[in-house]
Amino acid sequence: MKSGMAKGAQSLGFTEAPFLLSAGTIVGQKESQGPLGKLFDEYGEDKENLFGKETWEEAESEMQKRACLRAIQKAQIPQEKIRFLFGGDLLRQGTATSLGIESLQIPLFGLFGACSTSGEAIALGAMSVAAGYADYVLAVTSSHFGSAEKEFRFPLGYASQRPLSAQWTVTGSGAFVIGKEKSKVRISGVTVGKIVDYGLKDSQNMGGCMAPAACDTILANRKDFGREMEEYDQIVTGDLGYIGSTILLELLKKNGVDIEERHMDCGMKIFDQKTQDTHAGGSGCGCAAVTLGSYVLPKIIKGEWKKVLFVPTGALMSTVSFNEGESIPGIAHGIVLERAC
Amino acid sequence: MKSGMAKGAQSLGFTEAPFLLSAGTIVGQKESQGPLGKLFDEYGEDKENLFGKETWEEAESEMQKRACLRAIQKAQIPQEKIRFLFGGDLLRQGTATSLGIESLQIPLFGLFGACSTSGEAIALGAMSVAAGYADYVLAVTSSHFGSAEKEFRFPLGYASQRPLSAQWTVTGSGAFVIGKEKSKVRISGVTVGKIVDYGLKDSQNMGGCMAPAACDTILANRKDFGREMEEYDQIVTGDLGYIGSTILLELLKKNGVDIEERHMDCGMKIFDQKTQDTHAGGSGCGCAAVTLGSYVLPKIIKGEWKKVLFVPTGALMSTVSFNEGESIPGIAHGIVLERAC
Repeated sequence: MKSGMAKGAQSLGFTEAPFLLSAGTIVGQKESQGPLGKLFDEYGEDKENLFGKETWEEAESEMQKRACLRAIQKAQIPQEKIRFLFGGDLLRQGTATSLGIESLQIPLFGLFGACSTSGEAIALGAMSVAAGYADYVLAVTSSHFGSAEKEFRFPLGYASQRPLSAQWTVTGSGAFVIGKEKSKVRISGVTVGKIVDYGLKDSQNMGGCMAPAACDTILANRKDFGREMEEYDQIVTGDLGYIGSTILLELLKKNGVDIEERHMDCGMKIFDQKTQDTHAGGSGCGCAAVTLGSYVLPKIIKGEWKKVLFVPTGALMSTVSFNEGESIPGIAHGIVLERAC
Repeated sequence: MKSGMAKGAQSLGFTEAPFLLSAGTIVGQKESQGPLGKLFDEYGEDKENLFGKETWEEAESEMQKRACLRAIQKAQIPQEKIRFLFGGDLLRQGTATSLGIESLQIPLFGLFGACSTSGEAIALGAMSVAAGYADYVLAVTSSHFGSAEKEFRFPLGYASQRPLSAQWTVTGSGAFVIGKEKSKVRISGVTVGKIVDYGLKDSQNMGGCMAPAACDTILANRKDFGREMEEYDQIVTGDLGYIGSTILLELLKKNGVDIEERHMDCGMKIFDQKTQDTHAGGSGCGCAAVTLGSYVLPKIIKGEWKKVLFVPTGALMSTVSFNEGESIPGIAHGIVLERAC
């Protein structure tokens, strides 16, 4: 019997579903002052969020390492039992990951899916465990406001004014241990995203660029599993923010699907829009990962939500592609999380 | 029965091994004039290698797309049967891949493993097929001399002098269709690399930075499979070049392993060192991929080589990590290719 049964073009349903055993979350100071502040495992205490390091890049690496160690510790397994690590971040050549998890000495699959990477990492991790390739794997992603602004936008010292459609990159890292061992959260299936390009070119409106990809993946999940969206207690998008979420809901409605009552977006949840001056909401690889780990998973564990579709979204661009006039396509991966009995 | 039997800490041996069905290769003008020139499927005819596009980045994307289409065509399967695409490149945020394969509309797992990415893509592709997640998948990587120099070094117009330890980024893309369907090349196992850091910081000596990782992966393959290296007709490293290969052979000898008679390096094979002025050899994601597709695979298909260990190596760095004084760790993935009876 095969471990992953094909459910349609883009999706896999696991006959022997792997479990999400633990999450480690670490965030920056601003995130710790937001609505989810008390739920994270660890947070930075200085405004620069340097975590004892000298650069933002080193700080991001440090966060990844700490998030991984937290997740391993909470799963109560020895580190050497983790067979593979699936990880990525937003920086060029994924250096936050390669410099962050080096000391763990776990065989690595480096990933890039922009802010959808947490979904990609969990999908590949779950696929590996379900196939019997590993008893335990780690999935980790991160982002850092300082390193991301430096990578994608303007030097912070310029104090450039941000348009209202801009999102605020979350400083945070979330790591997850996935394994065969039973826990209260089962990863029952995945929907792997395609690249979706509506031709948008505004890097200060990432939500708008990514919303079509989220729509595409949600519709694929619905079709592949032959499932109405009402089956999910919650559909959790990654970091569409206020603008992207509005677009997503509209796009879905045009396709006859209404998820308004059961939709939440991590980018809208992590900051208080009224008091934290984050404009269209949070974003970044870390946004969806830490919100999943600290807010969504506990709700599934408690049984408040029995079935959740987690859909982190990514905007596929670089400063080079942007400067050369390319559009910004999006991608989104879907992870089906279920309360295990 | 599980499709992937654990063979030790870092390796997987497939009980139902997937097959490498076809390869599509495309290179630039310089590569087409090198020793392997006649073996590639397609090559650029202008010195800039623009492939009809306006920028090097667009040209690299175009190469990826063409390599994929070639591989699909040679596998003689309809494109819609390709279930997942595993792909990556060297550019920041992997834009060569996301802009290149967008039009194919195949669900994508974006990867980053520097020049080891061809190994990572083939490993994950093989794991997916062996697990029954897909009948066919694509693995693709690329590099482009122009886009890579712009990304990592100096504007070409400066005409900076390159030290003799520097390597020449290969302009090329290689794509592979992996499937359940029988062919003459079986992917019987993989060894997933760990990050190995000897503390080297010279970005103009990538071979030296990557050699320890290649050594580590080869020794892990030997240990995990309980196999002497003499079992392999050839051990093919990706792009260590002349300097890195010398270091690798010495490191292995210190560990009691001598592969000198059965080692080749794609970076040493693709250019003529005497006439092509490429210093320490070729490099880049495309180097190992196009050499595997055009030179190594045909030898296995003809039965000249029955068992090959393919070990592409990557240097994990960015201009930011380099400028901040970080060392350049390496990673290498091992793919066991066997002549199928």
